[in-house]
Amino acid sequence: MAFRTQVPVRFGDVDHAGIVYYPKFFIYFHEAFEDFFDENGVAYHALLNQRHVGFPTVHIETDYKQPLRYGDALDIEVSVPKVGARSAVFRYVGFRHRDGLHACRAEITCACVDMQSFQAMSIPDDLRALFTRFQS
Amino acid sequence: MAFRTQVPVRFGDVDHAGIVYYPKFFIYFHEAFEDFFDENGVAYHALLNQRHVGFPTVHIETDYKQPLRYGDALDIEVSVPKVGARSAVFRYVGFRHRDGLHACRAEITCACVDMQSFQAMSIPDDLRALFTRFQS
Amino acid sequence: MAFRTQVPVRFGDVDHAGIVYYPKFFIYFHEAFEDFFDENGVAYHALLNQRHVGFPTVHIETDYKQPLRYGDALDIEVSVPKVGARSAVFRYVGFRHRDGLHACRAEITCACVDMQSFQAMSIPDDLRALFTRFQS
Amino acid sequence: MAFRTQVPVRFGDVDHAGIVYYPKFFIYFHEAFEDFFDENGVAYHALLNQRHVGFPTVHIETDYKQPLRYGDALDIEVSVPKVGARSAVFRYVGFRHRDGLHACRAEITCACVDMQSFQAMSIPDDLRALFTRFQS
Repeated sequence: MAFRTQVPVRFGDVDHAGIVYYPKFFIYFHEAFEDFFDENGVAYHALLNQRHVGFPTVHIETDYKQPLRYGDALDIEVSVPKVGARSAVFRYVGFRHRDGLHACRAEITCACVDMQSFQAMSIPDDLRALFTRFQS
Repeated sequence: MAFRTQVPVRFGDVDHAGIVYYPKFFIYFHEAFEDFFDENGVAYHALLNQRHVGFPTVHIETDYKQPLRYGDALDIEVSVPKVGARSAVFRYVGFRHRDGLHACRAEITCACVDMQSFQAMSIPDDLRALFTRFQS
Repeated sequence: MAFRTQVPVRFGDVDHAGIVYYPKFFIYFHEAFEDFFDENGVAYHALLNQRHVGFPTVHIETDYKQPLRYGDALDIEVSVPKVGARSAVFRYVGFRHRDGLHACRAEITCACVDMQSFQAMSIPDDLRALFTRFQS
Repeated sequence: MAFRTQVPVRFGDVDHAGIVYYPKFFIYFHEAFEDFFDENGVAYHALLNQRHVGFPTVHIETDYKQPLRYGDALDIEVSVPKVGARSAVFRYVGFRHRDGLHACRAEITCACVDMQSFQAMSIPDDLRALFTRFQS
């Protein structure tokens, strides 16, 4: 099961070449990551501020297949193919909304970190259960 | 006396219309603001982190005169025309490097704030002396 | 009559001081500007790409009243208090969603420009009619 | 031989967690990419605008090793380990300036593209020679 969300391409997101500046895709992926938590009952800002649990990025692999332009939207499917003891891999598969073409794909490994000590920690049980629901 | 610095226009700074996206000018002005402190002997990150003094923005007036494109650079003159008890006005006058044309001008009022309590505070004497040097 | 839209504060929008980096407010205002056109029947990307009509910013006045943090959302009211021959003033009044407090206000003057020649042009009649509907 | 450049971490580059927002690293890498061309005699903006040659990103692998904070700077070494017929791999190895620790590493595959037709094209000879100088 994948979580689905959509991000619009905004006027300021394109670069000198008229297509979405590639670092912006990671902002889109992070927004999808925030939506994934927020819309599954775990407000990400409260997770950070109250429980002091965060998921800094440690490894990324990304493929770009189709450019996006201003006026496009990106449909993103989020899943969690690997759930380890102290890290998880989040997969983002993006489709250009207007034609459904596969636009991009990323696997982003995040460490589970105590945001006060900045030390690695075990993924809390409720989050592990959430990630496992979206594992396949 | 004005403080002078320069910021390059980067590939990702332009928008769908091929010119620098206007919110980016405020990032340029903030970089000039950081340079103003750093190059006058007050590391802005230490001011924030160690002395807990910051200057959040409360009012802005800006005029845009000439567009900038990728490959341009912006020469910025920073001065501090008004130094109040608990706030100061920073003036940024920008020139397009390639032809020297007046490109933009901003007056940005910043409150002096204790970053731990987020309460207004008097501008510390050493900063007041710095600002006054660049007042005219 | 004002047009209403909402933008969420994202994880990456806050700065070293833990509040929304003030240049981001202009990105929020521009998103509200895009929504204003798009949701009133004028796709802004098509206006730019097909009719070659754009609205670069020439003057800004902004007040910041309340800081926003990650997890906040900004409710924005867009109106067009002045509609001139070749320019218009867009007003953005922002409220922090969680408590309804007045957070920010901006008046942004935009020139109407032929995006092929980059010359000022008269505001087309259909856009003038749209702006006038939101004038008060 | 590697090309060396440095980017400062700016006030607005950090996120809610107080460290550089990971998408910003790709902006740093792109700035290093621009510097690589500009400081080796090939103005990247002229390459795009006059020769219509560009290098959109098609694949990324990145590791993050150390967080960066406001006040840090990132020393970046750029090399070009693979130079193909119509694509090249750019390697960015980043060190945190204050302690020299290895902070990040990315291999970014770029296609060589005719920016008017958006079709893949052979890497021009002068650029191939440049890339080969920084291959090891």
